[in-house]
Amino acid sequence: MLLTHPAIAPWLVREATGCRVVLLTDRADPEAVFLRTLPDNEEALLPMRPAGRHGALHAWEAALPWDGGNLATRYAFKVLTRGTQHWLAADGAHAHCPPESLHFRVHPDLPPAWVREQVFYQVFPDRFARAVDGHDALPWNQPLPVEALQTAFFGGDLDGLVARLDHLQLAVGASAVYLNPVFSAGSNHRYDTEDYDQVDPRLGGNEALVRLREALDARGMRLVLDAVLNHTGAGHPWLADDRARWYARDAQGRPLGWKGHASLPVLDFAEPALRDAVYEGRDAIVRRWLRPPYAIDGWRLDVIHMLGEGPGAHHNAEHVRGIRRAIKDENPQAYVLGEHFFEATRWLQGDQEDGAMNYYGFAQPLWAWLAGVDVAGHPIVLDAAGFDAWMTRARAAIPYEHQLVQLNLVGSHDTPRLLTRLGGDLALMHVALTLLFTVPGVPCLYYGDEVGMEGGADPDCRRCMDWTQASWRPELLAHVRELASLRRARPEWRDGAVQTLAAGSDWLLFARYTAQAVTLVGVNRGVAVDVDVPLDTLPIRVTDGALPRRLQLPERGSVLRFAAAVQA
Amino acid sequence: MLLTHPAIAPWLVREATGCRVVLLTDRADPEAVFLRTLPDNEEALLPMRPAGRHGALHAWEAALPWDGGNLATRYAFKVLTRGTQHWLAADGAHAHCPPESLHFRVHPDLPPAWVREQVFYQVFPDRFARAVDGHDALPWNQPLPVEALQTAFFGGDLDGLVARLDHLQLAVGASAVYLNPVFSAGSNHRYDTEDYDQVDPRLGGNEALVRLREALDARGMRLVLDAVLNHTGAGHPWLADDRARWYARDAQGRPLGWKGHASLPVLDFAEPALRDAVYEGRDAIVRRWLRPPYAIDGWRLDVIHMLGEGPGAHHNAEHVRGIRRAIKDENPQAYVLGEHFFEATRWLQGDQEDGAMNYYGFAQPLWAWLAGVDVAGHPIVLDAAGFDAWMTRARAAIPYEHQLVQLNLVGSHDTPRLLTRLGGDLALMHVALTLLFTVPGVPCLYYGDEVGMEGGADPDCRRCMDWTQASWRPELLAHVRELASLRRARPEWRDGAVQTLAAGSDWLLFARYTAQAVTLVGVNRGVAVDVDVPLDTLPIRVTDGALPRRLQLPERGSVLRFAAAVQA
Repeated sequence: MLLTHPAIAPWLVREATGCRVVLLTDRADPEAVFLRTLPDNEEALLPMRPAGRHGALHAWEAALPWDGGNLATRYAFKVLTRGTQHWLAADGAHAHCPPESLHFRVHPDLPPAWVREQVFYQVFPDRFARAVDGHDALPWNQPLPVEALQTAFFGGDLDGLVARLDHLQLAVGASAVYLNPVFSAGSNHRYDTEDYDQVDPRLGGNEALVRLREALDARGMRLVLDAVLNHTGAGHPWLADDRARWYARDAQGRPLGWKGHASLPVLDFAEPALRDAVYEGRDAIVRRWLRPPYAIDGWRLDVIHMLGEGPGAHHNAEHVRGIRRAIKDENPQAYVLGEHFFEATRWLQGDQEDGAMNYYGFAQPLWAWLAGVDVAGHPIVLDAAGFDAWMTRARAAIPYEHQLVQLNLVGSHDTPRLLTRLGGDLALMHVALTLLFTVPGVPCLYYGDEVGMEGGADPDCRRCMDWTQASWRPELLAHVRELASLRRARPEWRDGAVQTLAAGSDWLLFARYTAQAVTLVGVNRGVAVDVDVPLDTLPIRVTDGALPRRLQLPERGSVLRFAAAVQA
Repeated sequence: MLLTHPAIAPWLVREATGCRVVLLTDRADPEAVFLRTLPDNEEALLPMRPAGRHGALHAWEAALPWDGGNLATRYAFKVLTRGTQHWLAADGAHAHCPPESLHFRVHPDLPPAWVREQVFYQVFPDRFARAVDGHDALPWNQPLPVEALQTAFFGGDLDGLVARLDHLQLAVGASAVYLNPVFSAGSNHRYDTEDYDQVDPRLGGNEALVRLREALDARGMRLVLDAVLNHTGAGHPWLADDRARWYARDAQGRPLGWKGHASLPVLDFAEPALRDAVYEGRDAIVRRWLRPPYAIDGWRLDVIHMLGEGPGAHHNAEHVRGIRRAIKDENPQAYVLGEHFFEATRWLQGDQEDGAMNYYGFAQPLWAWLAGVDVAGHPIVLDAAGFDAWMTRARAAIPYEHQLVQLNLVGSHDTPRLLTRLGGDLALMHVALTLLFTVPGVPCLYYGDEVGMEGGADPDCRRCMDWTQASWRPELLAHVRELASLRRARPEWRDGAVQTLAAGSDWLLFARYTAQAVTLVGVNRGVAVDVDVPLDTLPIRVTDGALPRRLQLPERGSVLRFAAAVQA
């Protein structure tokens, strides 16, 4: 028996006292249909009423009250038929009541809606574009001296980025910039902050950030900065005065280095004055850059799961909640984005982050399926069905509204570039980019991926942006631009539910859809294959023939098909 | 590839800085074996060293440091072999990194060890035994008047229980008593407390509780009382004075009734004075009964997940933690037992409860497998493999030390009796009781189940104890007594790891084992079946022939086989 519940309107409609919830089934004859919820942590089985047809499916409706005791309202569906039970949870079908960790969850509060509308573009400032020559910069794109991998500068700056915004906006189709750290620091990656008040003069200083902000505003573009709050640089003046007590200590009483790096002393959030400086105070770091003239649109919070009291991450959640409160207090629409190389479920339950850099739920399964490598660099075998199941399971633990503002990515300044992981295979890169733009969440391109730049592990993945167009892969850039354009044109990519339609060893077919429109997405890492499209499993109807009942997935490629929904 | 990790010594050994952890594999040729843990919420892959043979298996060992930021230290195992990956989490094998919710978890703090040693016996005081005639009690075991289902008394009392302790200790083999509420109340179930300071005079008053305590002490038996803290009775004097503000209110300003029952007004733990009276104050309710002369050994906390602030369960965890702190402050070895009809995972993470009434992880799957009915009374189809998977998945989310003090049960005062659910089928009741005593956790018998009493839903499941031995089912009582005796004799039932050996549609074969001994447990709801016993998958060795390589599981029955381990 098919059960499905797209967790978007009109199948999940928010009202003052709760939500109106719709379950869809492929059979009309269940003996009973219940919405299972847990008011005050106790099971309630609410009978669901028949509510007509949605496409070929039968709808059942009930009112889901907001949970009185928890931030998230959890629910699942129970269907009785012919003496047996069918359950639906956020990860799919179950034969008995699913664990609470797999229940659907919905919050009264929503993450900022503007995030879904974006295509992000990640810029590593020292390596993207240089407007001002001079300083002591290396010639653009020459190999980094091995003795100065972190301390040699290529001189990329913010005015350089301003000068290249046409590339972001017009050539790529990006609408938002995520900048790696820009504050004064000792290294070229600037994760060793030395002054949270100052944009690095090498980047043009605070004035250059204002110019960037104004240039982005003129284009209707957004800006997210990188907040490195778990640790500072060893050169930070806090370490040199009585604020040295703001730092965690190792067993010998020395400042504790992040992952053993003495250059990155870890902050101790047990210190009230530090909390005041970072997030609680009126002019705290995370607050002030949200104000004009910088008015950034959000923060990417570096290794935020590690932040805490003493040498460990003690009371992490309390501090992340405090950082969130400070950010939202300045701008309720600011985007709170966590960096998590691993699973981020705990931070994505509505009280901490809006979204995370989605390594766990997108990049990791993608690397495993297409490149056969895991996050630790170990070989792994994963077929397309496993790829889909991994993404589905990861999404299941996160409210869908939050999933829609997860920052999906195929790589970053911390990973080998995907094209290099793929051995330069442009066809598979094409497949990966199709997925980046079409699975639930917001795509984020790492600078240069769009033109086929290569690079192994850090620092090789941070090569200077190659502005020599002759070396670009124009078909990749055209693909990205087309995907970005489609994402602007097709609300179902931004707001839609997702449903797996079929999967094999090498291929996957899924739908993104709203009540108004549907996109079929087929991706294939193997030989061309013809697959059936089970359109009747979607709760919408399209004009006969608008979508194929059988679709060819091209060899090592992807295919997209679109249609508008018609009233049933 | 077989991977297994029994989360007990010598495969998990607690040390000051963490645990020594052993993984077992059936192959010697992995390219690499890692212990995955999450210090400060960040993945660390710790290489594991070869550590000899355990039985036919290969051992791999590593030191697992205590997590610096979380109460639970989480871990899983990653094995690389022939280009692919094998993972082991608490629920079993995975092809890639399992979700954190399925990682093994271990705590520095342990629940009280004495609990594992017990066989509990649950007594509903009004219905068990009457020492003192008089009052206005109904004749023993006559039908309850329908107009007074909750207000007519049969006059069971604590001295009656004292007089029957030979039955508990000698005939049944129980060593601990869990008593439904004993404090003065308006109804015969006494969940409507009217005086937390007084044992109901009908039960003999506080003096009778002292006599019970002394009688139990003389036998080395334990006593757990029922704390009803979420609500009181409508007749509680708090409602009649300015303490009326301690109660939650509905939209009309009236006291809010628990699940709509006006007779059970819900307490509002936002009131500091209420918290003081219930758990924080020096002589708070949960504290004082832990002191002599009552010196109870633990509290069973009624509907504890629903307790909170305002009309809902807001801030539930904070208050349950506070109740735990108060209890452990009086007696660190007291048993904190939560009542949860549904999933209790959240309360069993070390900071709240030691164990729960294990409806979710034992009774519910048992009812589904043997009686075809779920917790809501709906029909359900579950085979033996599904029964095993349900129990395994439920255990996986709970530290194993806590699982070993979960209170397993086949029914209670809140459910139809299992024998009645089974249509009076003594053979299946026999199977259920075998499971009750042999799966991880502590068995709790509901009074009368041991002699074959029947009864449907409340109040029929609360019939007066039938002391007419002629109507007893002596084979059931003998089976219980034998199981209780074996549980005392066999540490692996109390402390052992569990490993599923094989499962079919109708039968299940599993092992409980320590490094010293093993029990094979076979249960079968169908026709007799011969099954292979994969002894080589256990990390211990027994004398050749001490255990069968092939075992017959009798028709609708159970089988036990024991052996001592020998040094490999």
